[in-house]
Amino acid sequence: MAAEAWVTLATNDSYAVGALVLAHSLKSANTTRPLVVMITDQVSTAMRDRLGVVSCLVQEVNVMDSHDSAHLALLARPELGITFTKLHCWALTAFSKCVFLDADTLVIQNCDELFEREEFSAAADAGWPDCFNSGVFVFRPSLETYSKLLSFAVSEGSFDGGDQGLLNSYFADWATKDISRRLPFIYNMTASGSYSYRPAYKQFGKNVRIVHFIGSPKPWQASEASAFQRPVPGDHIGLWWSIFVSHVLPCLSSEMTGVAAQFSQLVVKDERQQVVSKEEQHHSQPQGSPQHVVVATGGEAAAAAAVSSAPSSREAWEQGCVDYTGRDSFDKIMEKIAKTLESQQKP
Amino acid sequence: MAAEAWVTLATNDSYAVGALVLAHSLKSANTTRPLVVMITDQVSTAMRDRLGVVSCLVQEVNVMDSHDSAHLALLARPELGITFTKLHCWALTAFSKCVFLDADTLVIQNCDELFEREEFSAAADAGWPDCFNSGVFVFRPSLETYSKLLSFAVSEGSFDGGDQGLLNSYFADWATKDISRRLPFIYNMTASGSYSYRPAYKQFGKNVRIVHFIGSPKPWQASEASAFQRPVPGDHIGLWWSIFVSHVLPCLSSEMTGVAAQFSQLVVKDERQQVVSKEEQHHSQPQGSPQHVVVATGGEAAAAAAVSSAPSSREAWEQGCVDYTGRDSFDKIMEKIAKTLESQQKP
Repeated sequence: MAAEAWVTLATNDSYAVGALVLAHSLKSANTTRPLVVMITDQVSTAMRDRLGVVSCLVQEVNVMDSHDSAHLALLARPELGITFTKLHCWALTAFSKCVFLDADTLVIQNCDELFEREEFSAAADAGWPDCFNSGVFVFRPSLETYSKLLSFAVSEGSFDGGDQGLLNSYFADWATKDISRRLPFIYNMTASGSYSYRPAYKQFGKNVRIVHFIGSPKPWQASEASAFQRPVPGDHIGLWWSIFVSHVLPCLSSEMTGVAAQFSQLVVKDERQQVVSKEEQHHSQPQGSPQHVVVATGGEAAAAAAVSSAPSSREAWEQGCVDYTGRDSFDKIMEKIAKTLESQQKP
Repeated sequence: MAAEAWVTLATNDSYAVGALVLAHSLKSANTTRPLVVMITDQVSTAMRDRLGVVSCLVQEVNVMDSHDSAHLALLARPELGITFTKLHCWALTAFSKCVFLDADTLVIQNCDELFEREEFSAAADAGWPDCFNSGVFVFRPSLETYSKLLSFAVSEGSFDGGDQGLLNSYFADWATKDISRRLPFIYNMTASGSYSYRPAYKQFGKNVRIVHFIGSPKPWQASEASAFQRPVPGDHIGLWWSIFVSHVLPCLSSEMTGVAAQFSQLVVKDERQQVVSKEEQHHSQPQGSPQHVVVATGGEAAAAAAVSSAPSSREAWEQGCVDYTGRDSFDKIMEKIAKTLESQQKP
């Protein structure tokens, strides 16, 4: 079987948090394909390291280093920058077929069957269903297509200023040519209740494979009220937070930026997955008293507050969360080895 | 060519106002097919007469008079009543193929090409695009299909309590079987800006054929602010009101019910198509002073206020608006004839 992969994109550390949750959701769904994370230079070194642990490949894409004419023409149209970034996925020619997933998507159930679809397959956009939504699509990496897309971007632009407008113009026959290239909506379901047709969700929601947190706020910007409720069926933001708290939060560090750095100050407090700022941890209330859930960081993140069962060092290590500069630093490890050897040498 | 027709449904006089505007929009678009209006017994006699003037056929559909087993079984499930009413369109076997249009749709451009599509064709629902929206669909009248649909309604019900859930379950392969049966969104575009993908509308809006005032308020419930602006491109509520004021308002009468009766108290004031209550007409302001647009009726209708160029009797007569009980009553006409004869007999 030719190599196939999921592909996502993180343009900063905040979206990388989304990519990490997405990666864990794919693992939970037992996918047989790896995840490639494309990143830009806005992503911190600490986050690149972390992404490298959970995905097969971290691929830096850097518009400015390119020298071919299409790239240079695009540089004259900075409004297409974000569009351009996503198009890099067609340059991943180590793979024969891929499925692109926006970093604000979440895989709910195994959907490896998507790799049986052909380029270009996507689900209808809920707003204007003659257009596809470009948050999830099946494609074949190809330098020829990549080049054509760049030329098309330069000559035609994007009717919405983003990749969705551009890709809909390029793959203009998507809506009419081949029904198999119209992915069912269950592969890219708008998570926001305000967009969806509630009775249809009630009828078909159990089939949903991938949800998409279109628009704002993103789950990592959710209010504490929704973020810290235990997930219930259909509570996709709750599910996102459940994965985040279990698998991603323990591995964030202060060297990261954006919400990743803000969240790194939080630790899990109890089985209810309440989290608190490290500062508040030192002033925690006596056991048994009600726990507060407070917003620990202003602005973007709505992360909340308190301590207890933060994963042990061993759990964190086993999860691939290596604290290279702290408890798992080279010096500490050498110290541990020396102490162990010393104890063994004693009779 | 076998007989083909547009079909709509008015369950009361308020929706019949919508059906009248729809009828005039079809005429303005120079359709070559007639419109059949299905009505229930909630529609007043005055409104039936008016509908008869602008459409080829007013077909009363009456659930309660039916005696076959499917009908009786449905009577035990009153929640399916509204669903059942629309299904009557399959019983219009005088026609070989039809296009159903909800009474809250408006035809913007000729779209007779819809009759080239086959049963069952419909456009994706903007909320859940694996479902079709049942506001516009192509179908073939057939007593066999009608009977099967009734049986299906009784055995399976409707997942949303309406015709859309039922028809989506019955025509369950619509999304996957045949791409030609997926009508482009331009044939059933959600009029509300809050639902649509604005950049896509900007790109593709000029192609729109039919808009659908899904949800509430309906145009006949619009606030005066939106109702009395002159129509601008994309202002579909303004367009609805323009047709309403020009073609429907002059023909409404106090014998009608709902908003039809309320609107019958309004007359056109000036070229700006401001309308006022007849009462206010007698207290109108001096010429040149600012005109007020006021809500003339409480509750449902947001109709507004003042007088002047109400169509003349002759214009109204030529438009088919016969005031059978007023100026065009039998007695008045006989009186006019007598006077005319009398004047001619004078030397």
